[in-house]
Amino acid sequence: MEPSPRTPLSPQQRETLQAELHREWQGIRFLTELAEITPYECDGLVAFSQLPLGVVLPETEAEVQTVLRTCMRLGVPVVPRGAGTGLTGSAMPTPDGIVLAMAKFNRILEINPQARTATVQPGVRNLAISDAAAPHQLYYAPDPSSQLACTIGGNVGENSGGVHCLKYGLTVNNVLKVRAVTMDGSIIELGGAAYDSPGLDLLSVFIGSEGMFAVVTEVVVKLVPKPRTAQVIMASFDDMGKAGDAVAAVIAAGIIPAGLEMMDGPATRAIDNYLNIGYDTRAEAILLCESDGTPEEVAEEIGRMIAVFEKSGAIRIQVSRNEIERLVFWSGRKNAFPAAAQLAPDSYCMDGTVPRRHISTLLRHITTLEEKYGLKCINVFHAGDGNMHPLILFDNQAGEWPRAEAFGADILEECVRLGGTITGEHGVGVEKINGMCVQFSEAERETFWGVKFAFDPGGLLNADKAIPTKNRCAEYGRMHIPRGTMKFPELERF
Amino acid sequence: MEPSPRTPLSPQQRETLQAELHREWQGIRFLTELAEITPYECDGLVAFSQLPLGVVLPETEAEVQTVLRTCMRLGVPVVPRGAGTGLTGSAMPTPDGIVLAMAKFNRILEINPQARTATVQPGVRNLAISDAAAPHQLYYAPDPSSQLACTIGGNVGENSGGVHCLKYGLTVNNVLKVRAVTMDGSIIELGGAAYDSPGLDLLSVFIGSEGMFAVVTEVVVKLVPKPRTAQVIMASFDDMGKAGDAVAAVIAAGIIPAGLEMMDGPATRAIDNYLNIGYDTRAEAILLCESDGTPEEVAEEIGRMIAVFEKSGAIRIQVSRNEIERLVFWSGRKNAFPAAAQLAPDSYCMDGTVPRRHISTLLRHITTLEEKYGLKCINVFHAGDGNMHPLILFDNQAGEWPRAEAFGADILEECVRLGGTITGEHGVGVEKINGMCVQFSEAERETFWGVKFAFDPGGLLNADKAIPTKNRCAEYGRMHIPRGTMKFPELERF
Repeated sequence: MEPSPRTPLSPQQRETLQAELHREWQGIRFLTELAEITPYECDGLVAFSQLPLGVVLPETEAEVQTVLRTCMRLGVPVVPRGAGTGLTGSAMPTPDGIVLAMAKFNRILEINPQARTATVQPGVRNLAISDAAAPHQLYYAPDPSSQLACTIGGNVGENSGGVHCLKYGLTVNNVLKVRAVTMDGSIIELGGAAYDSPGLDLLSVFIGSEGMFAVVTEVVVKLVPKPRTAQVIMASFDDMGKAGDAVAAVIAAGIIPAGLEMMDGPATRAIDNYLNIGYDTRAEAILLCESDGTPEEVAEEIGRMIAVFEKSGAIRIQVSRNEIERLVFWSGRKNAFPAAAQLAPDSYCMDGTVPRRHISTLLRHITTLEEKYGLKCINVFHAGDGNMHPLILFDNQAGEWPRAEAFGADILEECVRLGGTITGEHGVGVEKINGMCVQFSEAERETFWGVKFAFDPGGLLNADKAIPTKNRCAEYGRMHIPRGTMKFPELERF
Repeated sequence: MEPSPRTPLSPQQRETLQAELHREWQGIRFLTELAEITPYECDGLVAFSQLPLGVVLPETEAEVQTVLRTCMRLGVPVVPRGAGTGLTGSAMPTPDGIVLAMAKFNRILEINPQARTATVQPGVRNLAISDAAAPHQLYYAPDPSSQLACTIGGNVGENSGGVHCLKYGLTVNNVLKVRAVTMDGSIIELGGAAYDSPGLDLLSVFIGSEGMFAVVTEVVVKLVPKPRTAQVIMASFDDMGKAGDAVAAVIAAGIIPAGLEMMDGPATRAIDNYLNIGYDTRAEAILLCESDGTPEEVAEEIGRMIAVFEKSGAIRIQVSRNEIERLVFWSGRKNAFPAAAQLAPDSYCMDGTVPRRHISTLLRHITTLEEKYGLKCINVFHAGDGNMHPLILFDNQAGEWPRAEAFGADILEECVRLGGTITGEHGVGVEKINGMCVQFSEAERETFWGVKFAFDPGGLLNADKAIPTKNRCAEYGRMHIPRGTMKFPELERF
């Protein structure tokens, strides 16, 4: 069970279809002019783009129902889109399909401080929820780097994480309920206020489904109390292996830091050169390790963290003495990507995971790949959960993109070989669809298709994303070594 | 998409099929004698029973593959079974089907204290995992009341909770990976060590699938450090409403107790009469509220809890002064069901949820139902997450079962009306299958079937459990008020 290949429409057929959709959708904003639709040709993965047949911007749930019913009847593929900040092309248009942009669903419907929930429309920005909850000393925990711009609908689609997900969980741990419209126009509600859903837990499988199941029209999220205080430790190491061991040792000591991030030497030097904030430029690795809670809890936990880092051979340990210093310590981490822009005209951000104790193995492998591909790569990542973000530096104008792309794929396959995964928090989209052939067996991929069709039997919703077809994997397999021994060779908690 | 009704086999056909299976499964233990198969006619829901065609007890994953392939080829329904402690009939045999008992899969394959994981076979008892991890000061958190007997395979099937799930989560929050065999004999692996699964999160939807998807052969669970200390508060209230408000106030204060349980007056008096441990028999409600962690954390949290209970009008507050007193306080809660046996020959344990602030509304409604049905009901439950366990007392010999059953269904429908659910942690099984018609719309139930068929296209695995067919709901709807306004009238975090 998987979708059949589609025959491309002729220019004449496209025009006829556009005209028909304009007739069907009178009163609904529907864009088909080149200048209007060009901004929708890609998402944050700018290397892949595709012009859609048109872009529809519904304003009500009833309009979403109308749009989807029409597309179902006419067999038009649909790609739902939030802010378009995704990094794997999940919101890239499907050929001859429409983009369903949810930008107008931007209202916060309720903040309930007693129940600690917010009910919002999918086009609400991640950070706007925390802003609205701030008067009640509450906030929405998942904090992807794009949180100023990205929307909660996109977060649901990608199961977004962030710096604090180690302690506070991913989107799936912070969403209570989703209301959505399926391709046939039905309304479904998944999850609810109870700890466990009766029947199958469709909410969890929905979160992270990359727009392949249904179009979200309402989300109920958990709000959590703002920690009373927070402090961060910045620890330098003269060896990446020691820093990796320190990460494993913190977790083994039973500490769950609010954030635990690592930067390698080249990243540290690039950042300090850019911001000049006194990062330890001799270091081969820097850890940022945060504690939050009551002042007593934080003091106790910071003490335990320092003991671990001392024992792991840190060459310099600083603890933020106030809120301003804490933000300065973090500012380097948060500006790593702009800093990288000083080093090369273009960069390609990867996203994979490895078991914590293999972090330094992967970093060493990346060093050998730098030689193989003749490109530099700097590393700034979520060490606590083994979620790596190698940033490959290249020059598109100089024709280096194909090498950067191959470099990235090589890193991800090494992640799988080390017992990790091809994606940590950015999803699969179009970028990593071949990686899915490496990560999963045919039986598992068939189950994915089955679940996709349970929600979308016609296979019209974002059907060319995230799950590869059997043919695609066969083709990819002919070019690469077969799967088999590569998958999860070791069972280990990250 | 849903399974078609099956034509019952004649006695002659049953015998022929049994003989064929014996031939197919030489070397695999396969029971068909009445005396041998009678123990498998029901699970913990003894009111429903059904003799299977036979019971197969494989010892290896290869034997599970053989069994499932044979059943798929011959179209024989399969019901997987753990310890049979489930309370909703999920492991009740299907007519003309076999029971696949996983009792022989009882080995703990690995305890990894560094990674904090245990890799176990599905027939391992819940408590045996914690026993094996104890030398490393680790344990497996979910603690259903049946944890001495129930197995991890059954816990995965039911997404089991327990007294401590408020703080430590359900099975779904504590399982990292599942390995399973599908009906066609394929091996699938779901989840892994990373925080987020690439592609769809099939692990979460698998956990709680009540044996309808595949047969589990291996489970990797998280282990967590044993709290350094724990204390429990026992608070009495002269009014159920005040106790309910106290529960809401604890959570609103930002406290997540390790356990937060409530007993009503009749339950308290029955328990004290049975154990004579000094429970406050004047109370109309008693709360048990536990804190665990470091001694400093516990002291601080117990102080905040006491303040909340005083403000909520508690008439007596006791704090356990040592570990023995803590266990005595809990012993009443843990012996509520044996205590109930003093009050009536039979009891029927319900399982539903309501938003916390409606706890007292539901309890008042149960009081009116006691009159309507002429039966008593006592209440001992997980107040912190609104998970109610009304225990209906009846006398089967006196023909009171049908009244008890109707009483139970009435309670669950009231749960839904109050914005809650028909099951908290016991699953749906056969017991609550009609309730699923009340809880979910037709579009939602069709999606359930679609996901079921993604794993089991032939619909042979436990297909008469958990998800109702359209016909069944239509029939149930003719007897009862229609769904519609009943579903989640209020959005609220429990």
